[in-house]
Amino acid sequence: MFTLTVTPRFYETDAFRHINNTVMTGWFETSREPILRIFSPEFPVRGLTLILALIEVDFVAQTHYGAEVTIRTSIEKIGGKSFTVLHEAWQKDHVVARGKAVMVAFDFDAQQSVAVPEAQRAELQKHLAAPQ
Amino acid sequence: MFTLTVTPRFYETDAFRHINNTVMTGWFETSREPILRIFSPEFPVRGLTLILALIEVDFVAQTHYGAEVTIRTSIEKIGGKSFTVLHEAWQKDHVVARGKAVMVAFDFDAQQSVAVPEAQRAELQKHLAAPQ
Amino acid sequence: MFTLTVTPRFYETDAFRHINNTVMTGWFETSREPILRIFSPEFPVRGLTLILALIEVDFVAQTHYGAEVTIRTSIEKIGGKSFTVLHEAWQKDHVVARGKAVMVAFDFDAQQSVAVPEAQRAELQKHLAAPQ
Amino acid sequence: MFTLTVTPRFYETDAFRHINNTVMTGWFETSREPILRIFSPEFPVRGLTLILALIEVDFVAQTHYGAEVTIRTSIEKIGGKSFTVLHEAWQKDHVVARGKAVMVAFDFDAQQSVAVPEAQRAELQKHLAAPQ
Repeated sequence: MFTLTVTPRFYETDAFRHINNTVMTGWFETSREPILRIFSPEFPVRGLTLILALIEVDFVAQTHYGAEVTIRTSIEKIGGKSFTVLHEAWQKDHVVARGKAVMVAFDFDAQQSVAVPEAQRAELQKHLAAPQ
Repeated sequence: MFTLTVTPRFYETDAFRHINNTVMTGWFETSREPILRIFSPEFPVRGLTLILALIEVDFVAQTHYGAEVTIRTSIEKIGGKSFTVLHEAWQKDHVVARGKAVMVAFDFDAQQSVAVPEAQRAELQKHLAAPQ
Repeated sequence: MFTLTVTPRFYETDAFRHINNTVMTGWFETSREPILRIFSPEFPVRGLTLILALIEVDFVAQTHYGAEVTIRTSIEKIGGKSFTVLHEAWQKDHVVARGKAVMVAFDFDAQQSVAVPEAQRAELQKHLAAPQ
Repeated sequence: MFTLTVTPRFYETDAFRHINNTVMTGWFETSREPILRIFSPEFPVRGLTLILALIEVDFVAQTHYGAEVTIRTSIEKIGGKSFTVLHEAWQKDHVVARGKAVMVAFDFDAQQSVAVPEAQRAELQKHLAAPQ
């Protein structure tokens, strides 16, 4: 599991006085940066990298300004050329959002998706989510 | 159908030289603003409004800087207290992203979800997506 | 003068229920994009371009959600390697913000500032602000 | 002095492969949040607070993705109803940006600027910048 703690910023609030929903996708992207570095150690230099195919966010509760948010990120499953990432955002001992992201191994130079190499696959497996 | 045309802004690009994926959720939120006004004509004043329960974005192709993006938004289905919104983002005659959003009718004063009122339901029905 | 009209987006509001101050610097950047294209017609391809040396924003009044903002951009003065851009943001017949930006002609390949070429200088002069 | 350390996020980069200039004004706003709390301990609840009158950012060098940025914030001078904040952003032992912000004490209920109260003035004085 990867863990990222963010302090909500004032400009991330909106007129409903909560954190704007669109901010969560940015936090989830940020929590996936260690995964990008597994593929591209010198990210964002070109070569092997990942492209994002799909995201899903389930807004469980309002996220408030004024308290830290911890994002727990793990790998749900690994396919041939892609894998699925799971996110949970916690604030004050409550889940405020859950998310998924499907990422595809991509060779920028060849401009095509490629098999997840063995070295990266082994690294991802260390972060597999516990079966539920 | 609701239609919104946006001109990608330079600060919406990222180091991959495309529009950053997180930007699409902001554009989709913006394309739903006419729906918010159906519920709260004086949005964002409190009273009856909508909360976002779930979003999903399917990134079909890279979105480029330098060409307009048109977002077509319609209603997929209307339930008792919630409804599902469909988005398609087009750039240069290609779909670059598809999305869904589940929105829930919410009474901010009572702090609870409520049935979609008949007036709003009738208005949403005018924007139902054609069956596929 | 260059003119850009923006419709404030809901995610650009903050918990004070106005447009967040940091948004104005993004709108001003967007209003300078025609100036970038004078220097780099195929922006953001490398070659001759502009770097931003300084910005200043004077917040004259609150910017509200729900009404268009028009940004009027002109050139205040042109020096050897740099020039100063003036911005005025108008909402409902009031100035809500004024701004300045100092931009420097920059050769990305050589990684150094260069003289503003004559062709670009002539183009900028067409947009000089009227003396006040 | 107030100190804030931020880790640049991927969505904060732009197509020039550096951190977009507009991001700095958001980081500087974030670094001023302890000052907002001096005025409004339960910020953003209404009552006495601060409004932003002017910002200035001097971009000294490119800010890179991949290394932390530390923002040092102090008070330059305190007037009757306003005061000036100084910012310095450091990355890898270099100053990458300097900034100023003029903030005005504001009573939201009365909708007018007010004198900086003695308690807040005393607190601000603890953070005065060393004379240069």
